[in-house]
Amino acid sequence: MAQHLKGASVSAEIIENIRREQSKYPGQVRLAVVRMGEKEEDLSYEKSIVKKAKEAGIIIQVHVLPEEITPKDASRLIEGLNADPQIHGVLVFRPLGNPLVEKQIVNTLAPHKDVDGITPLSMAGVYSDEEGLFPPCTAEACMRILSHYLVTLSGKKAVVLGRSQVIGKPVAMMLLKENATVTLCHSRTQNLMETVREADIVVTAIGKPRAVTGQFFRAGQVVIDVGINFDENGKLCGDVDFEEADKVVAAITPVPGGVGVVTTALLLEHTMKAAKR
Amino acid sequence: MAQHLKGASVSAEIIENIRREQSKYPGQVRLAVVRMGEKEEDLSYEKSIVKKAKEAGIIIQVHVLPEEITPKDASRLIEGLNADPQIHGVLVFRPLGNPLVEKQIVNTLAPHKDVDGITPLSMAGVYSDEEGLFPPCTAEACMRILSHYLVTLSGKKAVVLGRSQVIGKPVAMMLLKENATVTLCHSRTQNLMETVREADIVVTAIGKPRAVTGQFFRAGQVVIDVGINFDENGKLCGDVDFEEADKVVAAITPVPGGVGVVTTALLLEHTMKAAKR
Repeated sequence: MAQHLKGASVSAEIIENIRREQSKYPGQVRLAVVRMGEKEEDLSYEKSIVKKAKEAGIIIQVHVLPEEITPKDASRLIEGLNADPQIHGVLVFRPLGNPLVEKQIVNTLAPHKDVDGITPLSMAGVYSDEEGLFPPCTAEACMRILSHYLVTLSGKKAVVLGRSQVIGKPVAMMLLKENATVTLCHSRTQNLMETVREADIVVTAIGKPRAVTGQFFRAGQVVIDVGINFDENGKLCGDVDFEEADKVVAAITPVPGGVGVVTTALLLEHTMKAAKR
Repeated sequence: MAQHLKGASVSAEIIENIRREQSKYPGQVRLAVVRMGEKEEDLSYEKSIVKKAKEAGIIIQVHVLPEEITPKDASRLIEGLNADPQIHGVLVFRPLGNPLVEKQIVNTLAPHKDVDGITPLSMAGVYSDEEGLFPPCTAEACMRILSHYLVTLSGKKAVVLGRSQVIGKPVAMMLLKENATVTLCHSRTQNLMETVREADIVVTAIGKPRAVTGQFFRAGQVVIDVGINFDENGKLCGDVDFEEADKVVAAITPVPGGVGVVTTALLLEHTMKAAKR
């Protein structure tokens, strides 16, 4: 059986640090959450943020956009949040349901309040190793888990499955910064199984339930599963077939209980950092 | 002997297109070149730009910064170029010799005149596939050569040696966009030779004369050599040992006469595009 790289202990450490920091400014650190409508996955993520924020001592302020909102009005709301000194971070639940509104928001949000790294400048920051901006929380969560569990990255082969702007690309850039040799794979990759088997570290972010089966793996590998999917029975699962991989690899993150919980903690850490500036 | 992927025919096609476009606005398309001092490599690059620009019908306007210029004064010059409707593109020769001045310039230059993709927004554009901004010319030159010579990229293994912001990273992003499976290698990569041998397409951008020897290659590979180096006898050469690789691979760009000439042509193409907007 592989070592299970649980997110709980990584998250607990992060939350404890925020709580300590926050105690210098009690009740003053505030994160605005912006969502459109009442999608189930948004409400579920929001609930977990609210719970963790309470532990950390951070105040959450929810803004629900009506589905018929215009880009202009959405922009006005974001400008208000940008200008509000009581708001330190802004999280937008995406996809928002209206691509034009989403684009407008992404281009309006002030980079220093962009705690989930969605603005063009935040993205450029990840790409060019600029300090002072926030990377997407999920990508950073992968890195935090690797560092918490003391996984060596320098000189190692890392393979990333999925090339999205939210996870695949930024996590590739962050692995590269830690001197891993990084391969980006995707739906068009040939010999995917062979490529994954050659890796020392595998990060999966493809959004397909248990698509990465045991055959993809070999002994000694470390697997970070970013997928949050539901199988045909409605059961939450990752991109990796956990049961099969568990028999083969050295270490793997569970789903749930892996990357997701660390992502939420980092969102609050970013908000705390934004507040301190 | 391998096919030699010469830049001249790629460049000629680009220049011919610009010349035709430009004839609608004769003597009106203008590129500002900004350099500091009289470095030999800058003067040599400038000379080739001036020559190509003449063929294409684009006017070059050179601005020489004194070495003692302050960031503030450099910023004022760039703001002037940003505001000048007669200037359509701005090229800054880097490294500039003064990192503070360079940083100030990069952050001041208007993205729509940034014909060599050095501003944070241009970089974010390459990373996130945004349209309407200019990628670094050298990275795009690699892609143009591959497309001109009809090299298939989708599903192929591409290995990039070097992870610089100017070439390695952007060319990796551009190869990824064309559906190649991309591996980024660098000085810390272990088993570099083995990794390069597995690739279908190899792009070298490490700046070390003939460091990539024949042993790195196998039959059937396509090699794009971005290096512009001088060997111990002062002779211009690439990162690849051309003579050795030439016996093994399917196709390779020569140095000189490969990527470099296409880079200059693309600089002018970007200027033409900026003028048309």
